[in-house]
Amino acid sequence: METLGRHLIVELYGCDPNVLNDLDKVCAAVAQGCSDIGATALNVVSHRFAPQGVTVTVLIAESHLSVHTWPEHGYAAVDFFTCGGLDPRDGVEALRLGLRATRGRVQEIVRGLDEHVADAVKLLPEDVTVLSNVAVMSFDPPE
Amino acid sequence: METLGRHLIVELYGCDPNVLNDLDKVCAAVAQGCSDIGATALNVVSHRFAPQGVTVTVLIAESHLSVHTWPEHGYAAVDFFTCGGLDPRDGVEALRLGLRATRGRVQEIVRGLDEHVADAVKLLPEDVTVLSNVAVMSFDPPE
Repeated sequence: METLGRHLIVELYGCDPNVLNDLDKVCAAVAQGCSDIGATALNVVSHRFAPQGVTVTVLIAESHLSVHTWPEHGYAAVDFFTCGGLDPRDGVEALRLGLRATRGRVQEIVRGLDEHVADAVKLLPEDVTVLSNVAVMSFDPPE
Repeated sequence: METLGRHLIVELYGCDPNVLNDLDKVCAAVAQGCSDIGATALNVVSHRFAPQGVTVTVLIAESHLSVHTWPEHGYAAVDFFTCGGLDPRDGVEALRLGLRATRGRVQEIVRGLDEHVADAVKLLPEDVTVLSNVAVMSFDPPE
């Protein structure tokens, strides 16, 4: 099935709150993820919120990466949106390690399906591919 | 169910290719969408690709908005990721009108579910809420 983009929705739990609040460390993890998928970074924007939390968005030649953190929940929302043959899955490990996540989940959403296909399938769950649960991505399993 | 973020995945088809290739017009549509949801824009990054296509990402205080366009397919991939009580659905119409989409679909993904809930449900389709097909969002129906 032809598709234009691949979009990974990554939920990271049990992260180190200090890391999630450290803009330099989050940026470093994002840069590593960007590098691991072979993306060409065009621009980076980031912000540190008060009292806590950071946002980093990287515009890449192949779409974008973004991270939003909630240190108070040990949670980070990560998105890898890629096109042009890159495999966004290659970038997940850098974020998992960099943010020190202990649990997580990853799902891939097909973007830019041929519109005739899209008309046919509407919004059925087939658009959402469950890539992994905790174990598959080498996360420590929950208790 | 407690959730930290709301993420709209918007697929726009049948857009005007000239608009999709016009960075100023895409930026204007994004700015309107941003305004319509009541978001606070912190930073905007954009890029025009050769031979065609643009990318616009807006870092907002409530997460991010992004648009990637494929003029050759009349297609735009739009994401609204919001937190803090904003309703991202309010921004879709501005993009639909601004990019002159004739067809589209919108789905909402829950982000940052409580991790215990997340552990329980893993990656089941319940995480993905089908918001609308063409008709509900006032798009012209496909033939």
